[in-house]
Amino acid sequence: MKLTHIEHIGIAVKNLEEAITFYEEVLGLSCYRVEEVKDQKVKTAFFKVGQTKIELLESTDPNGPIAKFIDKKGEGIHHLAFAVENIDETLKEAAEKGVRLIDTSPRKGAEELEIAFLHPHSTFGVLTEFCEKKSK
Amino acid sequence: MKLTHIEHIGIAVKNLEEAITFYEEVLGLSCYRVEEVKDQKVKTAFFKVGQTKIELLESTDPNGPIAKFIDKKGEGIHHLAFAVENIDETLKEAAEKGVRLIDTSPRKGAEELEIAFLHPHSTFGVLTEFCEKKSK
Repeated sequence: MKLTHIEHIGIAVKNLEEAITFYEEVLGLSCYRVEEVKDQKVKTAFFKVGQTKIELLESTDPNGPIAKFIDKKGEGIHHLAFAVENIDETLKEAAEKGVRLIDTSPRKGAEELEIAFLHPHSTFGVLTEFCEKKSK
Repeated sequence: MKLTHIEHIGIAVKNLEEAITFYEEVLGLSCYRVEEVKDQKVKTAFFKVGQTKIELLESTDPNGPIAKFIDKKGEGIHHLAFAVENIDETLKEAAEKGVRLIDTSPRKGAEELEIAFLHPHSTFGVLTEFCEKKSK
């Protein structure tokens, strides 16, 4: 498989507006988009730094995955997403090498990416995502 | 302040050798360096993906910061490091904006970087590091 760069880093926050203010006014990054991803029960805010996006995630549901993550571990980095050249082949190769997949086939994520998650039990505790931008 | 890119992502692991094998044989990344940072009580392994390094961290001491992190939260992403253009000015600006600093002045980190950490209480749970490569 070929990982080309870190596509984004997902960060779980309790209050998206307060976190956006910090990333803009203290870190000097610019929020270029806010998007709700209904099937993930999150509202997300995007920033770009070099090749990589910072994706802040606030839960829209107290039983959503981000709310549960914060209940268990507190606010902080939630997942790490690699850009890949061919997500179908990459997933197939990961499965063949014994990696436990959360998504056995790609699905639509934020920002028109095809995405799939690997299970953190197979990846040394890091919730790992593969992303491919099909509409290049 | 000017953050140019994600310099590295620090990931806490229990067993460095096993994690290196996963990053090389499954994810296809290449470990280009293993280094012990004695004052941080860690052994680190470095990989490059695009502009960013993955820095795996294994504690060399059961009371070191990485061992304590794993005891509390399990293996996973430990910190997020931004490359900055001028670390002294960046730290000063962060302090002026009310950010709590772990390091009030830069110190020497791995790979000959000048580094400083911000306290996660000020950064929405993300242990955040600034890095500057002085010997360009």
